[in-house]
Amino acid sequence: MSLPHTWKRFGSTSTFTAKTASSKAHLHKPIPDDLFPRGYVIGGVHSGVKKKDTLLDLAVLLSTSPRPTSTAACFTRNAFQAAPVTVSKDVLKQTAGRARALVVNSGCANAVTGRQGLADAWAMARATDALLNPPRSSSETLVMSTGVIGQTLPISKIISALQPRGSLASVLGQGFAAWEAAARAFMTTDTFPKLRARTLSLGNGRTYRIAGIDKGAGMIHPDMAGALPHATLLGCVATDAPIAPAALQVALNYAVQRSFNAISVDGDMSTNDTVVLLANGAGVPEEENGAHEIDETRDPEAFMCFRDGLTEFMQELAQLVVRDGEGATKFVTVSVDGALSYEDAHKVASRISTSALVKTALYGEDANWGRVLAATGSVPLSAPLDPTRVSVSFVPIDGSPVLPLLVNGEPEHVDEVRAKEILSAEDLEVRIELGLGSECAKYWTCDFSYVSFPMLT
Amino acid sequence: MSLPHTWKRFGSTSTFTAKTASSKAHLHKPIPDDLFPRGYVIGGVHSGVKKKDTLLDLAVLLSTSPRPTSTAACFTRNAFQAAPVTVSKDVLKQTAGRARALVVNSGCANAVTGRQGLADAWAMARATDALLNPPRSSSETLVMSTGVIGQTLPISKIISALQPRGSLASVLGQGFAAWEAAARAFMTTDTFPKLRARTLSLGNGRTYRIAGIDKGAGMIHPDMAGALPHATLLGCVATDAPIAPAALQVALNYAVQRSFNAISVDGDMSTNDTVVLLANGAGVPEEENGAHEIDETRDPEAFMCFRDGLTEFMQELAQLVVRDGEGATKFVTVSVDGALSYEDAHKVASRISTSALVKTALYGEDANWGRVLAATGSVPLSAPLDPTRVSVSFVPIDGSPVLPLLVNGEPEHVDEVRAKEILSAEDLEVRIELGLGSECAKYWTCDFSYVSFPMLT
Repeated sequence: MSLPHTWKRFGSTSTFTAKTASSKAHLHKPIPDDLFPRGYVIGGVHSGVKKKDTLLDLAVLLSTSPRPTSTAACFTRNAFQAAPVTVSKDVLKQTAGRARALVVNSGCANAVTGRQGLADAWAMARATDALLNPPRSSSETLVMSTGVIGQTLPISKIISALQPRGSLASVLGQGFAAWEAAARAFMTTDTFPKLRARTLSLGNGRTYRIAGIDKGAGMIHPDMAGALPHATLLGCVATDAPIAPAALQVALNYAVQRSFNAISVDGDMSTNDTVVLLANGAGVPEEENGAHEIDETRDPEAFMCFRDGLTEFMQELAQLVVRDGEGATKFVTVSVDGALSYEDAHKVASRISTSALVKTALYGEDANWGRVLAATGSVPLSAPLDPTRVSVSFVPIDGSPVLPLLVNGEPEHVDEVRAKEILSAEDLEVRIELGLGSECAKYWTCDFSYVSFPMLT
Repeated sequence: MSLPHTWKRFGSTSTFTAKTASSKAHLHKPIPDDLFPRGYVIGGVHSGVKKKDTLLDLAVLLSTSPRPTSTAACFTRNAFQAAPVTVSKDVLKQTAGRARALVVNSGCANAVTGRQGLADAWAMARATDALLNPPRSSSETLVMSTGVIGQTLPISKIISALQPRGSLASVLGQGFAAWEAAARAFMTTDTFPKLRARTLSLGNGRTYRIAGIDKGAGMIHPDMAGALPHATLLGCVATDAPIAPAALQVALNYAVQRSFNAISVDGDMSTNDTVVLLANGAGVPEEENGAHEIDETRDPEAFMCFRDGLTEFMQELAQLVVRDGEGATKFVTVSVDGALSYEDAHKVASRISTSALVKTALYGEDANWGRVLAATGSVPLSAPLDPTRVSVSFVPIDGSPVLPLLVNGEPEHVDEVRAKEILSAEDLEVRIELGLGSECAKYWTCDFSYVSFPMLT
């Protein structure tokens, strides 16, 4: 865990590190029970995947809605897909987006585990299916795993915890406590459970609830448990709004591109990355019982409200991962404006956010627009960059004036004191104007510091 | 400079670090004068770009050959090109590959300097032209600059050093001492001058000489001289073989792709990266005075000999940069075999070599094939990867047996002691077999360590 390192190494001698440490603690807070979506039960327990029996390592989410449940998911594009990814894709297809459950374990990623790994992932799905009411013949459970790779799961421990009279069934609940236990069961190197919930308005006074859990992809301690560690990003979002399966997937693709696909901690892509979204319609009021599911054509306004609300919510979840990035002392928003296409803007933002030179300069609190410029110029775009149209500036989060570093390709005379002021803050925005078009994209990243490399501390 | 850090931080407590420090010192050694190519004069002086007057910062290379001199060059693909890059491209075009001189300064990159920067780069070229004999009307000098960006050159100091009776003309020479002075004038954060020379056989008993200088692109100290630092890779190679301009460019493109384009220190691309190659035919014996320049069609065997010899020589130069990578404690060769195309193999090797997770695991001496696999799987290839055909192994440089980590997608039971043995060595090869075809590529990289981030030490 990076927190002790942070304290040990910098203590109160470094303002921004102290800030980071304390703010991380504040990122986890209680949430009123009535903000969590209706028609779900959830819980987390220690099943024995992790050695320490105070650490939760198994979570289940079940839809109990009388209305049909829609499910959508996005998976890693890595050519090496862990067994749970293969199984979840299969279930999503078999159920045509109507899965009702999710089972998650931490401590072991069940990746690069061959046939045994697939059998284990299916066993987790089937055992969870048995907790659904009413039960159905085909599997309706998606599976997610995170932790060390190349090792098989202690599957018997997991299956016994999943029994109808097992430890998990006995803790399933609906409020903050139940969701928090599940969030803890997602954690690997995360320093706090990542959980959010809020209301979601789809217009015409229709208000629903949405809740989400995720876990981070920080630099992982290389000798953790003497095994092979791995960095994985998992996300689970549930709402009680009524959304049709196809529309739900469209909304998720849009939101993921602008949230989980727009953050960078270490720049690597895992074999297990998975984000799952459920919508069970349990929030539909009695009097509207006849109301049908929202889709793009039947109710475009409500769909857009849902898509944009989901995107904003998932951005909040994704940003928690960056804030908890192992060794991160700064939270940096990279904004790219004036691109010819969203894809171009996204590519440039991504390149800057993953540049080791940029990330170390940010840690060093160095107003190094040169590294930002070099990263920008190294991206092949749909149209060539015109250096004389490119501007770079630092945007403080306290609302004080923007600091231009480069304007239309000409370096500004930078007030070093002012630059230091902005750079010493924990939060910071780097804004790049390309001057080619009107498309923009945002990316969230952190700096590289000592603690980014735990094996060094 | 990373060397002191390395010593201070680890002292004798860390075998591989101690090894690195000492081996870096040994990487610079005297070279017999007769290995340097004929028909060139070269030298380096302190002109005043760098503050400390013991540091050389200006170098010139002139061809004095009675035969025509051919010149080829490769430049950064960054959209932001420094003034010297623009000028050098122009000169190369104007002379149709017949430039005869090169002028180089360190301490200031003359990048993002607008019209003034272009005027200064042209002034450097013209002043150097005046040292050529016989002089010609159009410029025949390529220009290279490295150092901080966004600052203009102290051009008057440079021009006065370049006068026919100036400090540089007075030190021009032909042997090791002259070449070493020039190599020192290339240095920025390099901890040693990078210079090599050897003979080059083109078959049929035709032997020529080749010499080269380069400087590295390590992580640069962010508060160096309080200015904006930048990482740049510069290379200059000269031979006395007679090669036609077009053939020279073809050979250089091939060699650069397999040398300077196959190394990674920090993974970023500079606005100044330039590699220049001169061939002046001065090594042609008297009796063969009528011999014409070698090209691909007229003398394919000799051309292949030259291309492959050049590639091997430039790989040695490029590897010096990796060994001197700021904070590098390991020199890692990444070999990708069994690809469908060279491009695919090169892409995978590049992705692995620039992965922060892989580089930190290497520093941590952790047999983490999982990170290698994840990096491999994240590269889009011309044909999809089949995980069951992929193998990963560690290859020790002492000739002892290879250590398989993953064989056809199945994890091996790894002997941790043996893995530690191999990983604790300073040099190491990571070999990936894709099992798709017969193409291969090599990449050279270093690990990330404390000292990769000087502002932390």
